[in-house]
Amino acid sequence: PPALRCIKKVVLMLAIQKAFLSGIKKPFTEVIKANIGDAHAMGQRPITFLRQVVALCTYPNLLDSPSFPEDAKKRARRILQGCGGNSLGAYSASQGINCIREDVASYIERRDGGVPADPDNIYLTTGASDGIATILKILVSGGGKSRTGVMIPIPQYPLYSAAISELGAIQVNYYLDEENCWSLDVNELRRSLNEAKAYCHPKVLCIINPGNPTGQVQNRKCIEDVIHFAWEEKLFLLADEVYQDNVYSEGCQFHSFKKILYEMGPEYYNNVELASFHSTSKGYMGECGYRGGYMEVINLHPEMKGQLVKLLSVRICSPVSGQAAMDIVVNPPIPGEESYSQFIKEKESVLNNLAKKAKLTEDMFNKVPGVHCNPLQGAMYAFPRIFIPAKAIEEAKAHKMAPDMLYCMKLLEETGICVVPGSGFGQREGSYHFRMTILPPIEKLKILLEKMKDFHIKFLEKYA
Amino acid sequence: PPALRCIKKVVLMLAIQKAFLSGIKKPFTEVIKANIGDAHAMGQRPITFLRQVVALCTYPNLLDSPSFPEDAKKRARRILQGCGGNSLGAYSASQGINCIREDVASYIERRDGGVPADPDNIYLTTGASDGIATILKILVSGGGKSRTGVMIPIPQYPLYSAAISELGAIQVNYYLDEENCWSLDVNELRRSLNEAKAYCHPKVLCIINPGNPTGQVQNRKCIEDVIHFAWEEKLFLLADEVYQDNVYSEGCQFHSFKKILYEMGPEYYNNVELASFHSTSKGYMGECGYRGGYMEVINLHPEMKGQLVKLLSVRICSPVSGQAAMDIVVNPPIPGEESYSQFIKEKESVLNNLAKKAKLTEDMFNKVPGVHCNPLQGAMYAFPRIFIPAKAIEEAKAHKMAPDMLYCMKLLEETGICVVPGSGFGQREGSYHFRMTILPPIEKLKILLEKMKDFHIKFLEKYA
Repeated sequence: PPALRCIKKVVLMLAIQKAFLSGIKKPFTEVIKANIGDAHAMGQRPITFLRQVVALCTYPNLLDSPSFPEDAKKRARRILQGCGGNSLGAYSASQGINCIREDVASYIERRDGGVPADPDNIYLTTGASDGIATILKILVSGGGKSRTGVMIPIPQYPLYSAAISELGAIQVNYYLDEENCWSLDVNELRRSLNEAKAYCHPKVLCIINPGNPTGQVQNRKCIEDVIHFAWEEKLFLLADEVYQDNVYSEGCQFHSFKKILYEMGPEYYNNVELASFHSTSKGYMGECGYRGGYMEVINLHPEMKGQLVKLLSVRICSPVSGQAAMDIVVNPPIPGEESYSQFIKEKESVLNNLAKKAKLTEDMFNKVPGVHCNPLQGAMYAFPRIFIPAKAIEEAKAHKMAPDMLYCMKLLEETGICVVPGSGFGQREGSYHFRMTILPPIEKLKILLEKMKDFHIKFLEKYA
Repeated sequence: PPALRCIKKVVLMLAIQKAFLSGIKKPFTEVIKANIGDAHAMGQRPITFLRQVVALCTYPNLLDSPSFPEDAKKRARRILQGCGGNSLGAYSASQGINCIREDVASYIERRDGGVPADPDNIYLTTGASDGIATILKILVSGGGKSRTGVMIPIPQYPLYSAAISELGAIQVNYYLDEENCWSLDVNELRRSLNEAKAYCHPKVLCIINPGNPTGQVQNRKCIEDVIHFAWEEKLFLLADEVYQDNVYSEGCQFHSFKKILYEMGPEYYNNVELASFHSTSKGYMGECGYRGGYMEVINLHPEMKGQLVKLLSVRICSPVSGQAAMDIVVNPPIPGEESYSQFIKEKESVLNNLAKKAKLTEDMFNKVPGVHCNPLQGAMYAFPRIFIPAKAIEEAKAHKMAPDMLYCMKLLEETGICVVPGSGFGQREGSYHFRMTILPPIEKLKILLEKMKDFHIKFLEKYA
């Protein structure tokens, strides 16, 4: 079935890694998993305040302990009051705990300079993926005779292609412009849409901003163009904004689709259907294991909303400890509170480090012959283009393998560095890439980048 | 779409409740949610040891605190060592944390008197439902020309009908025998299978033991018959055993399908494909909010196993704090450990109370004219049969409503007690039931049962 073929891509790299590790000779001392955005696994420390609150909720006896700060206790009490029987062990409503949805709405209002947000439009999810998959299910299930088309960027995070394929919808590709820092051009959206209309009914437009795997941060003009396009073409907008806190480049700034939509006036704000997604897994907290997330959905048709609630109720509720973690992401310590200075120190330390590593990675890759790397404006990945010599392409073909897969396998075999081939994300025919996280600690990252440079030069020589 | 129609049943009751609560007059002071197996929401306290371990994992600074027992710290350290970066915030492997899967395997071996269990056959899931839905997906996706049939008990927990419908498989009903304490008769399995063969390809047999909503506990002979039947007919067995700790009646005992399968000899043990499910949500711990669970899958074809791992990897991993909670369910304090006596006291207090409430509920219902209630041998629900007078059936039909839905709505309106109509679970044509949990504290449960009795008598009078 197509779903499984598609999912295959996602896990191929891990399979390789496992197969390889079961082998014997290893010309390196450790495998570095730069293939997945898993901050804590790479040594990033949790945000103390977040963990204090979740621990207090887990074991409320600690509410009497003098070693926990008052602001953490206050938040824990508020969360527990929202739980059945004051316990993280009770099911929550399918949409999520009420007071946490209120906190999410307040966060969005603050983030968007006062644009109103309604807790009733907020749904707490099991990571962002749960929300994305569920919304797609609703939108596709409503399709008529011709199959539903879902527009996604290429390159894209393969969750999208997998979900689209599993739902029996049609994947409609639009290409990001690598020559212009992976920017999104509305003319390319129009080309893609017009071609797709011949064979499906395009209903959804997915945007990933900041980009995964491409790391670009969209400017206000670009977002306005996209919204106007979606309005004109009556497309449902899916804004994957899980990297909203991960913006590094000078002059770049995160703009939420919701805010820009509002500022474009009521004709847009009252009509364009928009779902935007956030998560505990990325940003400065990197709490992937909690599977926490939310989505805000506006202008959804009431009937669709009913279907959404029903679908969400099948999984009863998202993990309640993940909901608690999400609450702290949207309701962190504020100036004047006891934990504020430590929180800000920890948060800024993570983000400043990521910014340094983003610059370092771009600079190092661009010094390697046959490698081109766009600025890592945001998110936590590099997606450099690599030149692969004709001889290597032939060898890959002989093994029925994508050329960049061959490249990544050789890299893993020779250096222990695990990255994901660009073919897993999609790329223009004849171009080759890989995705690498910038999460390893900076000293380790430097060594890793040096090793990759040496590998690449040897690779070019070998297949010259 | 049929999936949504089916899911509708599951949430109908909650919708009613919400609609009703937004109304004005309420002849009662509180709504009692006896519709869902949510122990903590009904006031059950968490098991201290479980929460201590999860709190230690959440905030490892507590490992230095003298107020946590050593046995809890030991388990927390072991779990953290299994986590990427020693953090609950890292993704785990899709199948779950290795050392927790080992603990699950040891638990199964102890439970089953030494029958071997392989950690490689254990998958940690987001509650049991995630496992059930995923296994069904794999089994159905492998279907040939004729559609896959999935045999389920009637009455059943509606997760099954919803999943089957969503996958486009065929629901094949077999009826439990209400006259014989909801027991399963293999002749009924055979009737159901033979009829189904005319219109689909039956491949899967689902068993819920102890039963939900019916509360029966299968004896060894019954399980042997079922296994023999599955072996003969080459059916994949799905054993939903989430209530394995919830057995109350004298002379009843939980037997796992895995154990009986093993004891029936290699011809069965090496051939019958079996998936069995467990969860943190039920038993004596009632940790629904953690969304923890596991499944053990044996004799799965290697190709299917590959598909299973791929499907699981789409959701990346189940919530890691839920995995930690699952670990404590399978690896609780043992005699000689510091926390043992408190743990046993708490565990037995919950289970003894449930046993008392099971008996009380059965006895009370059977004193009401027009109500018949089988013994609640296990699980945590009563599923009494109720007589509904012809006039009430007419009124329900006029409102395009199932008669037991009318009954439950009236009950809610007049008493504030929320239960689920039998039509949501399936029942023999012309018979009517509802499902009610026995989770409210015993004093409250007594009042609740008295109210239900009064309501029922008045209902009979009104529609006489």
